[in-house]
Amino acid sequence: MSSAPDRLDGLRERLRGFVRERDWEQFHSPKNLAMAMIVEAAELVEHFQWATEQESRELTPEKRVEVEREIADTFIYLLRLSDVLGIDLIAAAQRKMDLNAQKYPADKARGRNDKYTAYEQ
Amino acid sequence: MSSAPDRLDGLRERLRGFVRERDWEQFHSPKNLAMAMIVEAAELVEHFQWATEQESRELTPEKRVEVEREIADTFIYLLRLSDVLGIDLIAAAQRKMDLNAQKYPADKARGRNDKYTAYEQ
Amino acid sequence: MSSAPDRLDGLRERLRGFVRERDWEQFHSPKNLAMAMIVEAAELVEHFQWATEQESRELTPEKRVEVEREIADTFIYLLRLSDVLGIDLIAAAQRKMDLNAQKYPADKARGRNDKYTAYEQ
Amino acid sequence: MSSAPDRLDGLRERLRGFVRERDWEQFHSPKNLAMAMIVEAAELVEHFQWATEQESRELTPEKRVEVEREIADTFIYLLRLSDVLGIDLIAAAQRKMDLNAQKYPADKARGRNDKYTAYEQ
Repeated sequence: MSSAPDRLDGLRERLRGFVRERDWEQFHSPKNLAMAMIVEAAELVEHFQWATEQESRELTPEKRVEVEREIADTFIYLLRLSDVLGIDLIAAAQRKMDLNAQKYPADKARGRNDKYTAYEQ
Repeated sequence: MSSAPDRLDGLRERLRGFVRERDWEQFHSPKNLAMAMIVEAAELVEHFQWATEQESRELTPEKRVEVEREIADTFIYLLRLSDVLGIDLIAAAQRKMDLNAQKYPADKARGRNDKYTAYEQ
Repeated sequence: MSSAPDRLDGLRERLRGFVRERDWEQFHSPKNLAMAMIVEAAELVEHFQWATEQESRELTPEKRVEVEREIADTFIYLLRLSDVLGIDLIAAAQRKMDLNAQKYPADKARGRNDKYTAYEQ
Repeated sequence: MSSAPDRLDGLRERLRGFVRERDWEQFHSPKNLAMAMIVEAAELVEHFQWATEQESRELTPEKRVEVEREIADTFIYLLRLSDVLGIDLIAAAQRKMDLNAQKYPADKARGRNDKYTAYEQ
């Protein structure tokens, strides 16, 4: 009995094939991929720059489609960058969550938006 | 027989719990999360700003650990933003890959780093 | 009678000397400088990511000093990038303001935060 | 005898008038302006993301015009943000250069691209 393939693994493989078919590995240095990723991240930010926080929570259906595409683009480059560096995105995030749990103890950080250094004294 | 839970779903749930325990939903508007995400993306870019492309492909073990953490931070905010907006990150990326396959036909885009508009004529 | 030297010109010259003394021209490709600039821009954004708009208008004196430094860093890299490319920052901005005046006619754009394409129909 | 008005002051005044005529002060919180600024910074980065460092030093005339516009946009928002916060951009940059001169002593930093913390031991 084989388990269903992980959805993230499937996406990563599709992305690898996409790049290889176009002979784009030559452009995909971590330096360049990090640049491409932040450019997409900014296209996402652009949708929210003049919106109030409340407006950003209540997107019109049209806006939501556009935002979804920018989120996808950012994610695609982030996944590709991880793959080029041999980093497992989920495992890395789980490890970082372990660290965050120490940096932001729930009882001290509740309802506060300070930087973690505020909880270290 | 139940299948193994998807790893991304597990991470998203952990993140939800982390935010709820700290009563941080109030700060997590899409506008604010997009800002937090690009800030983390820039901390990733910082590691590569003075490096050559070749150096960015050959990170020292120490550097690699730091880069992995910034990738994780960017991913965490991107996943959280998706969740707040009710967007499935993997499905969104798969749909975007469908679009990209149309925008960048393999036979035309091979070995070129032009923007897709260059293939539309 | 000689006029006072332009303040921006003075800063640009100081910056040139600073870089030359440290033999940093080799690192200052436009690609790298654009990366360094966006990293500083993000450090500025970080100060505002969890703040409300109103809070961002009413900085504490301590916060204001930090924000001022990040603004300065962003500006320094932007000026340096312009200089490396032989671009006059003020003249470029004045030309762009001419374009913006056409893209956003005052009578149509008053009180609206749409993208300029909304005024082109 | 009056001296010629400073060019940066002139641009800042023009920008103020532009915003006032359109009744855009309401959108120009520091939070929003910082977002708009990083979005423009990313449009600049986009021009260099797949270019080699060498290519970024040798822009075609067409590319140069586009890069100049993105530099101008970034500068315009940075100047506007400074103005809203009551910060003198040149004075802030000169003060930051004083700090940088201490952080990066010329004799130690020559030809090195380390972060300043490397010079503090």
